[in-house]
Amino acid sequence: MFAMTVRDHMMVAHSLRGEVFGPAQQLHGATFVVDATFRREDLDPSGVVLDIGLASEALRSLLSGLTYRNLDDVAELRGANTTTEVLARHVADRLAEAIDRGDLGDGARGVASIAVTLHESHVAWASYERDV
Amino acid sequence: MFAMTVRDHMMVAHSLRGEVFGPAQQLHGATFVVDATFRREDLDPSGVVLDIGLASEALRSLLSGLTYRNLDDVAELRGANTTTEVLARHVADRLAEAIDRGDLGDGARGVASIAVTLHESHVAWASYERDV
Amino acid sequence: MFAMTVRDHMMVAHSLRGEVFGPAQQLHGATFVVDATFRREDLDPSGVVLDIGLASEALRSLLSGLTYRNLDDVAELRGANTTTEVLARHVADRLAEAIDRGDLGDGARGVASIAVTLHESHVAWASYERDV
Amino acid sequence: MFAMTVRDHMMVAHSLRGEVFGPAQQLHGATFVVDATFRREDLDPSGVVLDIGLASEALRSLLSGLTYRNLDDVAELRGANTTTEVLARHVADRLAEAIDRGDLGDGARGVASIAVTLHESHVAWASYERDV
Amino acid sequence: MFAMTVRDHMMVAHSLRGEVFGPAQQLHGATFVVDATFRREDLDPSGVVLDIGLASEALRSLLSGLTYRNLDDVAELRGANTTTEVLARHVADRLAEAIDRGDLGDGARGVASIAVTLHESHVAWASYERDV
Amino acid sequence: MFAMTVRDHMMVAHSLRGEVFGPAQQLHGATFVVDATFRREDLDPSGVVLDIGLASEALRSLLSGLTYRNLDDVAELRGANTTTEVLARHVADRLAEAIDRGDLGDGARGVASIAVTLHESHVAWASYERDV
Repeated sequence: MFAMTVRDHMMVAHSLRGEVFGPAQQLHGATFVVDATFRREDLDPSGVVLDIGLASEALRSLLSGLTYRNLDDVAELRGANTTTEVLARHVADRLAEAIDRGDLGDGARGVASIAVTLHESHVAWASYERDV
Repeated sequence: MFAMTVRDHMMVAHSLRGEVFGPAQQLHGATFVVDATFRREDLDPSGVVLDIGLASEALRSLLSGLTYRNLDDVAELRGANTTTEVLARHVADRLAEAIDRGDLGDGARGVASIAVTLHESHVAWASYERDV
Repeated sequence: MFAMTVRDHMMVAHSLRGEVFGPAQQLHGATFVVDATFRREDLDPSGVVLDIGLASEALRSLLSGLTYRNLDDVAELRGANTTTEVLARHVADRLAEAIDRGDLGDGARGVASIAVTLHESHVAWASYERDV
Repeated sequence: MFAMTVRDHMMVAHSLRGEVFGPAQQLHGATFVVDATFRREDLDPSGVVLDIGLASEALRSLLSGLTYRNLDDVAELRGANTTTEVLARHVADRLAEAIDRGDLGDGARGVASIAVTLHESHVAWASYERDV
Repeated sequence: MFAMTVRDHMMVAHSLRGEVFGPAQQLHGATFVVDATFRREDLDPSGVVLDIGLASEALRSLLSGLTYRNLDDVAELRGANTTTEVLARHVADRLAEAIDRGDLGDGARGVASIAVTLHESHVAWASYERDV
Repeated sequence: MFAMTVRDHMMVAHSLRGEVFGPAQQLHGATFVVDATFRREDLDPSGVVLDIGLASEALRSLLSGLTYRNLDDVAELRGANTTTEVLARHVADRLAEAIDRGDLGDGARGVASIAVTLHESHVAWASYERDV
């Protein structure tokens, strides 16, 4: 099994709903360092999991719709409790759609699964993995 | 599949038994930077793997019984060869018990597995993963 | 010259004033991983720059007044443009006051300067250094 | 399941074949920070995945045949498109052979799989995992 | 004293001249993770050391002339022994020129010094600092 | 001003003397990740601060006398309170002597100062800098 990962980041405000979040129910913020990992059993004819340039651009483009914003006001996240876990799934789902649309190149259609990890600090991170 | 990780550390002395360990058979020590990862298929109703505050406290509490000590003299490790691998299992097993006792909250009962990684230096680490 | 550094973090929302900030003029957020460095020419009688336990507690206490908040609404920062640089100075100034008050122990009175670095992502950080 | 990882690195020149690589078709280079992970269900009688000293030496020895070279001229890679993914597989395959030869000790014969990750920068890495 | 740092990277081939370099006299390569630090006594009117967006762009633009190339063939480095130290000075000098030209904005004219660090691996790095 | 840094590590047991150390008065241990930085105004004729191979070997040799030991029993540290700060000075002083003896090559005689940083965990480190 092969995997390839690219890293980028976003800087957002948000608030969380639920007593379990304590002070994080207040409007606060986070830098999420985002690692997007693509896995597949065999390499494409060029010897890669997918085109790293297209993967980096897709991740950057996706995050550019979220960074420097208050996620409580972002339409595509309306109704979501934007925990690190939920945001990891959101990013993974958008990357899966980008593969479906062909945005990551024809070679990327061989990708079997996507894992996205969001680092919220030097001592905490969360991830979500799904098939494509 | 979702995962959530918290990081803490402990600073311990110990000696290892067996010729394979060479000079590490002598009393020496290590800082173990400890990553505890909790995995589950679906999120709890709050949209998290488990309460990160309780998870951090449980890890800190568990490590506080070991840090600043000589593991050769720690009762709960008597008879163990305290390799990085064995310590990773020890921490994972204690966290699984904490979930069972409800110390990590009711939501944590949905956790499917725990993985614990101990970093012994910038060039070596070991981990253990088990079901809960 | 000796130096000792402790690391902690805060997760905040804020907005920045000035066209130079582009989209960061919007309400957004950041995790700031904060490194507080204390320097002095000679060690105290215990052989340290200062009591690391007290230094960690002072940093944690100071950051607990800011984390999980919208800095635009924090009284002690009223009127400030809370750039990473300005926040680094804010933290350094509060630590210098803590030393003055004796919160970091008598030994800490020998500290000559404080440097505070705030990491806003894996690709950007800022710092401020001042005499005590 | 247990895992143990050791880290080393190599500094190489190479060129890649295929339009997908854009400017990386030119002769350029990379530092690959290499993580070799060994997994097995149970520990050996010493309480480890394998002898970490032998594992480190095997990785160093293997990389010493590649580092400070132009991979386009290395016989053992002739015909290969030396992408990060392909190099990860190359290292993993050589480590599996070393286990087979007994170079990593008798205990290492219980290793079930090997995963090799090559970090090409602070924002990109690739890996390959295989059974032994 | 304030400082602000941005990070980027380049991937290059090169060879070094001199017996001291041993096998690094051969054509090989490196990923250089490049940290560019700008220092000044006081902040500009916006509360920053300089415009971080312009600084990031200037660093990226500068490195884009070097990355994915064999430095032995790069005209602007002709005659240079492209050690990590020499490359750090090269990047710092180009950034100083960019400030002089106004590429980093009017605010950047208050920058007092530039330090550039090139990380060649996880265990070695070099830097150069100069006044502006 | 130029600087060049190499990184290595040691794993030691020790105990600290003084009430300020609380539980660290007990026998415990640490992994110290050690960064040795060499500074000088101008480069040597080869274009480096010093021979990185000799610097790495000198650091490794020096640490090999300490690693896998209980520092309370190490003759060269008798009487010392082996805090992170004191150990940083010890390593820096030994490196300065190595330069004096010529162990780091003739070029290294131009080194102006040495800074040694010991990382004791992911959240604490200390350093010492001295002229040569």
